[in-house]
Amino acid sequence: MAVNIPETDKERIVIIGGGFAGLELARKLIKSDYQVVLIDRNNFHQFQPLFYQVAMAGLEPSSIVFPFRRIFQKAKDAYIRVAEVKSVDTEKKIVETSVGDMWYDHLVIAIGAETNFFGNERIAKHAIPMKSVSQALYLRNHILEDYEKSVTVRDFSDRQQLIDIVIVGGGPTGVELAGSLAEMKRYVIPKEYKELNHKEIDIYLVQSGDRLLYGMSDKAGEDALRFLTELGVRVQLNSRVTDYDGERVYMKDGNSIPTDKLIWAAGIIGNTLKGIPEDIIDRKNRIKVNHYSQVEGVADVYAIGDIAMMSTEDYPDGHPQVAQPALQQAKTLARNFKRKLKDKEPKPFKYFDKGSMATIGRQRAVADLPAFSFSGSLAWLAWLVVHLFALIGTRNKLFVFLNWIWNYFMYNQSLRLIIRPYTRKEL
Amino acid sequence: MAVNIPETDKERIVIIGGGFAGLELARKLIKSDYQVVLIDRNNFHQFQPLFYQVAMAGLEPSSIVFPFRRIFQKAKDAYIRVAEVKSVDTEKKIVETSVGDMWYDHLVIAIGAETNFFGNERIAKHAIPMKSVSQALYLRNHILEDYEKSVTVRDFSDRQQLIDIVIVGGGPTGVELAGSLAEMKRYVIPKEYKELNHKEIDIYLVQSGDRLLYGMSDKAGEDALRFLTELGVRVQLNSRVTDYDGERVYMKDGNSIPTDKLIWAAGIIGNTLKGIPEDIIDRKNRIKVNHYSQVEGVADVYAIGDIAMMSTEDYPDGHPQVAQPALQQAKTLARNFKRKLKDKEPKPFKYFDKGSMATIGRQRAVADLPAFSFSGSLAWLAWLVVHLFALIGTRNKLFVFLNWIWNYFMYNQSLRLIIRPYTRKEL
Repeated sequence: MAVNIPETDKERIVIIGGGFAGLELARKLIKSDYQVVLIDRNNFHQFQPLFYQVAMAGLEPSSIVFPFRRIFQKAKDAYIRVAEVKSVDTEKKIVETSVGDMWYDHLVIAIGAETNFFGNERIAKHAIPMKSVSQALYLRNHILEDYEKSVTVRDFSDRQQLIDIVIVGGGPTGVELAGSLAEMKRYVIPKEYKELNHKEIDIYLVQSGDRLLYGMSDKAGEDALRFLTELGVRVQLNSRVTDYDGERVYMKDGNSIPTDKLIWAAGIIGNTLKGIPEDIIDRKNRIKVNHYSQVEGVADVYAIGDIAMMSTEDYPDGHPQVAQPALQQAKTLARNFKRKLKDKEPKPFKYFDKGSMATIGRQRAVADLPAFSFSGSLAWLAWLVVHLFALIGTRNKLFVFLNWIWNYFMYNQSLRLIIRPYTRKEL
Repeated sequence: MAVNIPETDKERIVIIGGGFAGLELARKLIKSDYQVVLIDRNNFHQFQPLFYQVAMAGLEPSSIVFPFRRIFQKAKDAYIRVAEVKSVDTEKKIVETSVGDMWYDHLVIAIGAETNFFGNERIAKHAIPMKSVSQALYLRNHILEDYEKSVTVRDFSDRQQLIDIVIVGGGPTGVELAGSLAEMKRYVIPKEYKELNHKEIDIYLVQSGDRLLYGMSDKAGEDALRFLTELGVRVQLNSRVTDYDGERVYMKDGNSIPTDKLIWAAGIIGNTLKGIPEDIIDRKNRIKVNHYSQVEGVADVYAIGDIAMMSTEDYPDGHPQVAQPALQQAKTLARNFKRKLKDKEPKPFKYFDKGSMATIGRQRAVADLPAFSFSGSLAWLAWLVVHLFALIGTRNKLFVFLNWIWNYFMYNQSLRLIIRPYTRKEL
């Protein structure tokens, strides 16, 4: 069955995935002389850098996601399809989706990456990932439900399992989560859960390597470690989680920690798409592309963002799997599509590293600029400003800003609400 | 197993339910010389009059619910227990809950009412109720998912089932939902779902009686009908839904309407609580109380709010099941508890009717004051102000106010996001 999209005499670009790469490409092309179709399983774009604040009850999901249709209001010949992609046929140039088949002239794969459990299925089953707002909300509810349960529990070790949290992965997500959990323990618990002794709460951050924030400067890693230690987080470097049964986390050194919440932020692996030849997929599931983002050996198919493995002189193992390369690849590809209409040659992608940042808590952040690194209140302010402006939409900026102001002065996240999904099954 | 609540030499008041009645009572008593325990299945109070705006993507749930623990921050000897109540034993003076048993000196039942499907199980299974924020969110997601699906559907009658909506019940909830759906059809669909012909969307409001807004003035009912008709809602008075199979709504007159969304706002029935003698429960499941809110024939047990059936000279069949009587009963009961500590006699409850209002759309509302009735823009403004101030918490007032301003000037609800709950099953 063919999907219902108006026919046109323009060439059709189908984009799979509305993350940083896919959405940026769509935005640059919706006023061009192409027909654009964006396919995503959600009807909104998610701003991943702030997932941890949703999980910590500091922001609402709606403040950090943006509905695609809002952006496409201005478009003349662009369409959203909320659907699952089942496979692609690069010979017939067709995408098979849950709402029907769709032909394309040009296909852009921007399906991103998902949590990598490195093949450990027990961990995959019991740990909590952090790769969608839904997962962030799930974590929020889980933490709050466990606090509520814990006030009714008399036995210390039973309580410990409910209130202690283990985070695996010393990247930005792990560091940011650990920092804000530590602040919740310090500022919120004594006020709102007086029956709990907040000193009983332990927050573990487990990192397999010998430092935090790989990919950032040594200074950033050291400062992050210092900030987290100041906040009381138990950072375990050179440590590795080998198993988790939902009740106890087992470490490589033989120790174990009882907890019913293991947050897994230890790595990502590319999402898979049926129909892409296996020989151009690398061990991190990325699709090999040339410097024009063209998928190797497959005509009229492109890959951008976390899913793309583009080997360059500066980045022989591919670019960092973060927002900036994704956005920049999308911009270059959009320009090349427009050049194509004018019969001009495409230009190769060149990554411009603007730097990177991570926040640990109130007035505690680390930042690497191309020229120098800094940390503390100034880095924290810079982090706030950069992330505020990176959000899509005036409304989101306004509401995130107000929430931040509120939470900062009240020493409190306002959204500690366990809103359970309603299902017909309740009846 | 006894639930873990600190022992005290004060008398303990246990309140079941944190709706308008239960929460108001708790707020008035948390600084008194009683120990207060509030039991609710949620960790938050829900502001029911704005559920329909959550369903219409105009407000976030977090803006209209308020965490109990925030209120209890100021309390010295007051406790929240998020739990299900299984039964009460009024002889032994014990409440049995999902987190353990709890003794009481005084028990206040404020468990409110739920949707009344009048015994029709097929309707109960397929229709969507509107008695919790979770249900409101469910309705929101359902509407949005169906719009997304409908743009891929070529067949008109298939599409009709996805985009048409039937609302049963001509009270405030039904009227307010119908009005805002009509405005979504008029203002939002043409902008964001250009592929849909918004004229294809039909909104039905089915009311068994011969007028809308029973309980309000004739003028209010007539004006509401006029406003809805202006907005294009198909109001069917003297009409009755007899069955619904999830695909088609069957009417008493033999007609039927294809729709996969039937919203049921046709009536409420008291929640049940095991352990309350059946002979003091009326046909609407309300518990009979005297003028001091004391449950008839049961010592030290009280009932307030929607669950209470207090027959007075002015209200022989009980008070209206809305917020005002609930709040006022809670205030009177709190005063009587405090008088008790001073060995003073309790005072009987007397309801002061402040009037009632319903809003239909932009600058369209109806209001009954004790002295006179009015409608239009002034009633609409009054409705906004009254509901804004009735919300608990400065943050909620601020965020609701900003959302209203935004939605009013943008002619758009900003939260049309289908955020599906994450479940471990996904793995």
